[in-house]
Amino acid sequence: MEYRFSESTSRFQSSAVRDILKLTQGNAVISFAGGLPAEQFFPLEAVKEAFSRVFDKGNGCLQYGLTEGYTPLREKLCERMSRKGINATPDHMILTTGSQQAIDLLARIYLDPGDVILVERPTYLAALQVFQARGARVVSVDSDADGMLPEDLESKIREHKPKMAYVIPTFSNPTGKVWTLERRKALLRLCQSHGILILEDDPYGELRFGESVPAPTLFSLDEGPDGGVVVYTSTFSKIVAPALRTGWTIADKEIIRQMARMKQAADLHSSTMDQQALCRLMEHFDLESHIALIRREYGQRLQLMLTLLDSHLRDDAHWNRPQGGMFIWLELAHGLNAAELLKEAVREGAAFVPGDSFYAETPPGNTLRMNFTFADDETMRLGIERLSRAVQTCRSDLVRG
Amino acid sequence: MEYRFSESTSRFQSSAVRDILKLTQGNAVISFAGGLPAEQFFPLEAVKEAFSRVFDKGNGCLQYGLTEGYTPLREKLCERMSRKGINATPDHMILTTGSQQAIDLLARIYLDPGDVILVERPTYLAALQVFQARGARVVSVDSDADGMLPEDLESKIREHKPKMAYVIPTFSNPTGKVWTLERRKALLRLCQSHGILILEDDPYGELRFGESVPAPTLFSLDEGPDGGVVVYTSTFSKIVAPALRTGWTIADKEIIRQMARMKQAADLHSSTMDQQALCRLMEHFDLESHIALIRREYGQRLQLMLTLLDSHLRDDAHWNRPQGGMFIWLELAHGLNAAELLKEAVREGAAFVPGDSFYAETPPGNTLRMNFTFADDETMRLGIERLSRAVQTCRSDLVRG
Repeated sequence: MEYRFSESTSRFQSSAVRDILKLTQGNAVISFAGGLPAEQFFPLEAVKEAFSRVFDKGNGCLQYGLTEGYTPLREKLCERMSRKGINATPDHMILTTGSQQAIDLLARIYLDPGDVILVERPTYLAALQVFQARGARVVSVDSDADGMLPEDLESKIREHKPKMAYVIPTFSNPTGKVWTLERRKALLRLCQSHGILILEDDPYGELRFGESVPAPTLFSLDEGPDGGVVVYTSTFSKIVAPALRTGWTIADKEIIRQMARMKQAADLHSSTMDQQALCRLMEHFDLESHIALIRREYGQRLQLMLTLLDSHLRDDAHWNRPQGGMFIWLELAHGLNAAELLKEAVREGAAFVPGDSFYAETPPGNTLRMNFTFADDETMRLGIERLSRAVQTCRSDLVRG
Repeated sequence: MEYRFSESTSRFQSSAVRDILKLTQGNAVISFAGGLPAEQFFPLEAVKEAFSRVFDKGNGCLQYGLTEGYTPLREKLCERMSRKGINATPDHMILTTGSQQAIDLLARIYLDPGDVILVERPTYLAALQVFQARGARVVSVDSDADGMLPEDLESKIREHKPKMAYVIPTFSNPTGKVWTLERRKALLRLCQSHGILILEDDPYGELRFGESVPAPTLFSLDEGPDGGVVVYTSTFSKIVAPALRTGWTIADKEIIRQMARMKQAADLHSSTMDQQALCRLMEHFDLESHIALIRREYGQRLQLMLTLLDSHLRDDAHWNRPQGGMFIWLELAHGLNAAELLKEAVREGAAFVPGDSFYAETPPGNTLRMNFTFADDETMRLGIERLSRAVQTCRSDLVRG
């Protein structure tokens, strides 16, 4: 039969980039594209032990669970978040299949087609996909290394009357930047006075390598959870492991209740095996030391990539020097185009994500995102050399063209 | 701040029943309400061993996975489904967080607000929630013990021009009925000729207790997967355990591709811990013998409940005698109302789901769904006695009123 897909399906941009990146799977291409943690540092033994403790509790561990998530894990997370200045009870929290699902559920309960959501320029591409699938109108706010520019934010609020704003203020995806305290306060003040709900996406906040401590979360600067303007979400994917697919969201109780109702329709609940195991892990494993280990190792990988970029791409691009997170953000020089470069790079055996996918509108064509956490030192050296050769080929093509 | 939830949020019916059922959690109420498997028969040791095998594969088991799901599990499932007359390759399959998520994803990629979807009368309540949240117009087709009535189906097709139909032809939720072969063929023929996509929800097909074998699935009677009119979904929740939250969907490749794109926005992917464990389980555990065990045990529980109903409620209700599944469907006599009865039953210490939630329109008020798989014999006896007392109270209230 001839299928008649919904309108929102056609709203998904077809992605030439995704097709190229698919070619990189399972072969010899060194990929800096994915936002993948380093597998070496996954706490396999501790996770194994945690699952074993779950099974010790007997058959009940395999039954259906609550839509809001395993209550003892929500309690543990509330304790941990309170040490970070975020105060909430389990009633203010819902567990989701990664924080990706939190973005989707909140968009579904809060945005109608045509509603405006403000985002950073650039921002996380899979959040853009959620808002586009929802039929929302996504408006980018001009942003620099310190966060959204308050003047542009204010003018976009007046022009577009947004209902929501989506931001990653700490070690953002894709740029790795950290908002200053002033910029955070400016966003909060404007959203509070215009009744705009903020989704603060914080998957990378713990991945801090430098000495300087980032400014407090928007959530902790707000007056929530109840009646607050900020919905906060984070995940175990970067600090324990992504396969466990467990994120959490903290917000006003009524927002959590509505997210739970939507989640009940979406999938009843997420894996309680994973949630129970993470609870046992938090009880019996030194998560703080583990995070300290990841910080050291990722910090070294970041330094290595910066050094390699300095020696190989100094004349062809410039980039930032993030203090945490998983990504470096590059701008190509000489009229080089990132999508063209990707094709050449894949031919050489290296991959990255061209930056255009991270823009809601008018992408610049010359930016790209490099992940520095996944590849080990030797692989990273080899990959950057390949990338460098691809850049040289593109440059000579430009000269010839 | 004052929150401005989306329209679809207000479309969710607020459920007085859910509030009553919440009262039953964690106290002495015997609940026949949930569709819960019996915990005694969960294959805990085998699941534990399966997870242990996953960890033996090393750190890679904790990394991000494919949106479509763990490929070796899709391969295993294709093998198993082919033994049941359903032929497909892993490209025709996506794994989801329970089959609930399959319903949601398909509704999101196929239905626009205002589109019409046909359902049985009555049908699965959480599917109704999905379609309502999507803003679809749900139209019930009159149904008897053999399935949808072809005459009414044809007239509703002509009147409403539906885009999709949602059915549970084998041991349905809530009624436990099985469609005859003729009714299956009638639905197929009409949907094929009018280009209506069918979602065949089959979570209970394996839970067969009687001697008679149900008619083949709609999917196996169709010409799919490619270009087919049927999307098939099932789950491990009833044959292994719900906590693992793993369902699968088989359909035309393009439908699967669109579901995967939507799933990428919805949650990137489901728990790969659970998917890997289920794959190891299928390799090393005798799933067929386990299903045979569940069939025997559930068949006995069904018989016991039927016997108890016969002795306690013969004069106050009538009900069907299903050959499988998890539910018995009752119609109350004497003008008794199921919602009123629930209040009284909870006071007595027993619970069930009033049938009205399973109707898209004009609920009759006097139906209810009883689960027979969860409670053990002693608990079931006690619960039905309590229910019977509640019925007597309601009857005398009726007489007094």
